[in-house]
Amino acid sequence: MKGFAMLSIGNVGWIEKERPACGPMDAIVRPLALAPCTSDIHTVWEGAIGERHNMILGHEGVGEVVEVGSLVKDFKPGDKVIIPAITPDWNSREAQRGYSMHSGGMLAGWKFSNFKDGVFGEFFHVNDADGNLALLPEGVSPAEATMLSDMVPTGFHGVELADVQFGDDVVVIGIGPVGLMAVAGAALRGAANLFAVGSRPNCVEAAKKYGATDIINYRDGSIVEQVMEKTGGRGVDRVIIAGGDVNTMSQAISMLKPGGCIGNVNYLGSGDSIGVPRIEWGCGMSHKTIRCGLMPGGRVRMEKLAELVRLGRLDLSLLLTHRFSGFEKIEEALMLMREKPRDLIKPVVVI
Amino acid sequence: MKGFAMLSIGNVGWIEKERPACGPMDAIVRPLALAPCTSDIHTVWEGAIGERHNMILGHEGVGEVVEVGSLVKDFKPGDKVIIPAITPDWNSREAQRGYSMHSGGMLAGWKFSNFKDGVFGEFFHVNDADGNLALLPEGVSPAEATMLSDMVPTGFHGVELADVQFGDDVVVIGIGPVGLMAVAGAALRGAANLFAVGSRPNCVEAAKKYGATDIINYRDGSIVEQVMEKTGGRGVDRVIIAGGDVNTMSQAISMLKPGGCIGNVNYLGSGDSIGVPRIEWGCGMSHKTIRCGLMPGGRVRMEKLAELVRLGRLDLSLLLTHRFSGFEKIEEALMLMREKPRDLIKPVVVI
Amino acid sequence: MKGFAMLSIGNVGWIEKERPACGPMDAIVRPLALAPCTSDIHTVWEGAIGERHNMILGHEGVGEVVEVGSLVKDFKPGDKVIIPAITPDWNSREAQRGYSMHSGGMLAGWKFSNFKDGVFGEFFHVNDADGNLALLPEGVSPAEATMLSDMVPTGFHGVELADVQFGDDVVVIGIGPVGLMAVAGAALRGAANLFAVGSRPNCVEAAKKYGATDIINYRDGSIVEQVMEKTGGRGVDRVIIAGGDVNTMSQAISMLKPGGCIGNVNYLGSGDSIGVPRIEWGCGMSHKTIRCGLMPGGRVRMEKLAELVRLGRLDLSLLLTHRFSGFEKIEEALMLMREKPRDLIKPVVVI
Amino acid sequence: MKGFAMLSIGNVGWIEKERPACGPMDAIVRPLALAPCTSDIHTVWEGAIGERHNMILGHEGVGEVVEVGSLVKDFKPGDKVIIPAITPDWNSREAQRGYSMHSGGMLAGWKFSNFKDGVFGEFFHVNDADGNLALLPEGVSPAEATMLSDMVPTGFHGVELADVQFGDDVVVIGIGPVGLMAVAGAALRGAANLFAVGSRPNCVEAAKKYGATDIINYRDGSIVEQVMEKTGGRGVDRVIIAGGDVNTMSQAISMLKPGGCIGNVNYLGSGDSIGVPRIEWGCGMSHKTIRCGLMPGGRVRMEKLAELVRLGRLDLSLLLTHRFSGFEKIEEALMLMREKPRDLIKPVVVI
Repeated sequence: MKGFAMLSIGNVGWIEKERPACGPMDAIVRPLALAPCTSDIHTVWEGAIGERHNMILGHEGVGEVVEVGSLVKDFKPGDKVIIPAITPDWNSREAQRGYSMHSGGMLAGWKFSNFKDGVFGEFFHVNDADGNLALLPEGVSPAEATMLSDMVPTGFHGVELADVQFGDDVVVIGIGPVGLMAVAGAALRGAANLFAVGSRPNCVEAAKKYGATDIINYRDGSIVEQVMEKTGGRGVDRVIIAGGDVNTMSQAISMLKPGGCIGNVNYLGSGDSIGVPRIEWGCGMSHKTIRCGLMPGGRVRMEKLAELVRLGRLDLSLLLTHRFSGFEKIEEALMLMREKPRDLIKPVVVI
Repeated sequence: MKGFAMLSIGNVGWIEKERPACGPMDAIVRPLALAPCTSDIHTVWEGAIGERHNMILGHEGVGEVVEVGSLVKDFKPGDKVIIPAITPDWNSREAQRGYSMHSGGMLAGWKFSNFKDGVFGEFFHVNDADGNLALLPEGVSPAEATMLSDMVPTGFHGVELADVQFGDDVVVIGIGPVGLMAVAGAALRGAANLFAVGSRPNCVEAAKKYGATDIINYRDGSIVEQVMEKTGGRGVDRVIIAGGDVNTMSQAISMLKPGGCIGNVNYLGSGDSIGVPRIEWGCGMSHKTIRCGLMPGGRVRMEKLAELVRLGRLDLSLLLTHRFSGFEKIEEALMLMREKPRDLIKPVVVI
Repeated sequence: MKGFAMLSIGNVGWIEKERPACGPMDAIVRPLALAPCTSDIHTVWEGAIGERHNMILGHEGVGEVVEVGSLVKDFKPGDKVIIPAITPDWNSREAQRGYSMHSGGMLAGWKFSNFKDGVFGEFFHVNDADGNLALLPEGVSPAEATMLSDMVPTGFHGVELADVQFGDDVVVIGIGPVGLMAVAGAALRGAANLFAVGSRPNCVEAAKKYGATDIINYRDGSIVEQVMEKTGGRGVDRVIIAGGDVNTMSQAISMLKPGGCIGNVNYLGSGDSIGVPRIEWGCGMSHKTIRCGLMPGGRVRMEKLAELVRLGRLDLSLLLTHRFSGFEKIEEALMLMREKPRDLIKPVVVI
Repeated sequence: MKGFAMLSIGNVGWIEKERPACGPMDAIVRPLALAPCTSDIHTVWEGAIGERHNMILGHEGVGEVVEVGSLVKDFKPGDKVIIPAITPDWNSREAQRGYSMHSGGMLAGWKFSNFKDGVFGEFFHVNDADGNLALLPEGVSPAEATMLSDMVPTGFHGVELADVQFGDDVVVIGIGPVGLMAVAGAALRGAANLFAVGSRPNCVEAAKKYGATDIINYRDGSIVEQVMEKTGGRGVDRVIIAGGDVNTMSQAISMLKPGGCIGNVNYLGSGDSIGVPRIEWGCGMSHKTIRCGLMPGGRVRMEKLAELVRLGRLDLSLLLTHRFSGFEKIEEALMLMREKPRDLIKPVVVI
């Protein structure tokens, strides 16, 4: 079979591979819609996860089951399914402790395009089909459902980590596709004033539609000062970090009330250390909680989020600025992601 | 009246002041037992909270009520009471949000020897008597009860912040009096393996009595490596930071499992920034939660912790290595705290 | 001054009283808009809280401050304010334990028209003004803001008690004004399928606008069976009880998944005992959690909910089906509440 | 192979069966120590779970692995293991939602001596060995470790459900072996006053050793009145129900503070309905939370609790009042459990 792969750091291309084998609990799926992710870019061109050879890329997709293992009970060939980016080993110690995304080791629930071939192949392998697949609901298009693999659960997890409550004032730093989902999630969870930090016009427009009440543009000065001014010097209850770098935490801490909470879902690809400013953190006594996390994956998470889309509570079409048709277009879509033109939020390839 | 005061940064001495006035919700108390705190040392000799002139020191004490305001319902002159270091304004926005210790601003629930005269006077003022005093239970000595003002609630809050559960493996970094109370609290909350990081023989001995299963001495090499070795490379579920400096967080993160939690109760007096190591924090996706906080004060907290002492579930006598008699000995006790001889855990002055 | 009062069980009328006195922490307020509550009806005609003589009724209102006590810092005469139905004593033990609505005893945070005169007077008294008043934001009408005293915080508390999470399936039993706010709150907190149990056409229409996906009418058969059928036999994650009687709990338990949660905010006025069905509760092992509670009151709660209204995230106009003008119309409005015509959701009186 | 079985309701006896087959994820284990449980008695003589024919009894045991499936990674023949009474399907929807004990349906994580043969056979089958077995630590005897299958995790879960915090006053109703573990767990989690309700001398003595501060005997009058008197009329923060019947909940509610929490781990075998008293439950507004649950099983739970025993933090020897030797003695031990002599806490059979 064919797949679009990372050949080595800095190099990509089409390769031929054996169709993956199906274990007793697993499924083999062929893609119906695929989306590249910024992580694919980091993986290939920044070497973020280290060297890989001829590893098929991709971890956002919707597909059709073509084969299932002997122990699989709930899925059969022909089923249209959503595949989460994170596919845990559910009986692992980490999953039993409530952290399935770290099953087998920190971040090790992330398997596609990390420890094994990803979804940009004619076929791909899903471990623990009953635990990790979800049926695509009627009325949800495969293109939109690709956003359920990673963008929605990651953005919404930022909201969960920051623990947004009714009437909270919330900042979302970064309004790429994950940040936009954090904005949508914060609004959907009862935030009051919702400050979205970003500048690209497409994203700003989408952020407003998703519920942002104010846009904070770093070109207009310190984002901390802007937030403090808009909140009468009090700061906010929650900050969700969905962009920036190792210096962003310092800004988040500085705009947070004592007792507030930060939820980081931004992948920090470089830098030795994230700096927490001592004074603003109350000399270690501020009750400003710092949480972070890889998205929760698996079947139930996909089913729940897909229902929000099916019922019209969450509109994913705003994210899909560039649509392609045909499996071979995955290359073009990935390159678009790499170039990141100003009007891009997210490309999708329908097969 | 007389009081032992910070005259200015670096200078202390006895001063004369007016006996404080009693507002409608307040109480005036005379001390029965007092204890100096490392914070007093930081305040005077490191200028940790900035310049202060003729401010009476001290925030750990037990006393007798001599006057109450017209709105006070539950206390009367003659009552023997425990005074918490933190005395919140309970109707403040921060208290309503669950963070009474930050009532009126970050850390502003800390009033004694910070925004107003402390307890090292012949008399001292307590705001909101009904909300902030607790009766000294029969059978608990004033000397021991001074440890309830700050040492016990701070150490136990580290355990609460780190969210210790049955069977968790826990590290406590720092085994001065607060760290020892964190050890005692972690054991009392169901920790399994309990690693105490410290080296002073007195403290090591007390840590073992309070429930530590292993002592980690930084002189024996990297404390991270020692903990990882003792846990078969898995790390621990919780780390409580009760000592060290801005670099200690990095060690705590490095010895923590994904999904684990850090509770910092160490006052960080210097340094620009606390460093969170990027790789060990899972590039911002590890679910290693960082919490910190000033101790919860107030009446209910004092009552609950005092019951643990009264019932013999917590033995505070191990902390009191140096006992003095007479109000004027507060000077000597404070100086001892400054010198910090190797056999000191905590001095107390009984009046 | 004049007030509309409960003369005794079953009797109401206008009375003359002294204008209330203002303590040092308190405020005296004159009403700008008032709303009667079903509780007023229970109080008078069912004797729900026992006998009362010449007690001014009402606990939902917006007003103007006319006097403040000497210790009040944040409010002054002329301020337009929202008054919560629940006005806690914030320094009480119960408030320190996190349950301010029970300050001074179970349910004792409820003072208006219970332990003291309510808001249906020309003036009324508010204890702890700084702790319990909130400024009426610009752009929110006094009429709509009356819904913030009780209907919104009670309905939303049902959502908090039931702990609704992203994508949860939720049932709201009862869609009077509190139930409608539970529907709105559940949608605003990320519910997926949202089943509203009720039959009055006005309420059904409002429930749909507030986000209900399905209406369950008890006239169409067992509500348990209807919910089970619509969920493929699985039941729901959360049930909010905002109507019914002591038998409603049994239905709620029966339609709930193991691990689900019930939030009751319905005042149960009669019956000895609420029945929890043994088998459906898993013989006491189902992890079906039963929570209940009086609404949280106080300043911060009012401020947060008012922001949701000001920002247009919550539209209260749908609740106000009957509007009156003039203080003396409070009698007519109350009687309307008693008759409960089929098109009534909530009456309001603007002064 | 031989096994001691329920032949039908009311009848037990030795039977011959095929040794169970081992699936790819499973293990076959031979017992080293076994303990009968009150549930076995309910199952056979009260028909609590309905009719069963020739079903081998027992769900508390320690054994030696004799065979593992092809997908099992962490266990091998010869390993000595603890087997939890609850052995979930970890990839089920319920487990993903955090309720593994209900995997596949309410209570369906309970498989041994319920849906399949129990552990009272010469060999028994364990589903998902990697997810559900734990190595027996050195220094913990097989006899004592049988208490980790059900008694310890059930009693401790009562403490978790009731959410005991530092300094809480706690009642444990029922001090059979599960109740005693609730007492031990509450003390180990920081309870202050700990009221144990029971009367059998053996159990009373053990309760005191496990940390009870007061014994409440129903023969001395109403247990509610006794608790209220001992708490100065305030009631307690937490009640753990580990005995009694459908009427016990009413007592628990009546002795609980507003904002308190009940954790029920008592299997309620008869009665239509559990009664929650309306007035004492604050007419549905008391914030008295009612939680219940089947114990969490699986590997991590067993490992954590076993560490507490290995480290000497929990002494299980007090529970084992009657010790037998030899597999065939399981019949005698079960009959003893049925007779329940006054000096019995728990029998164990070492093989």
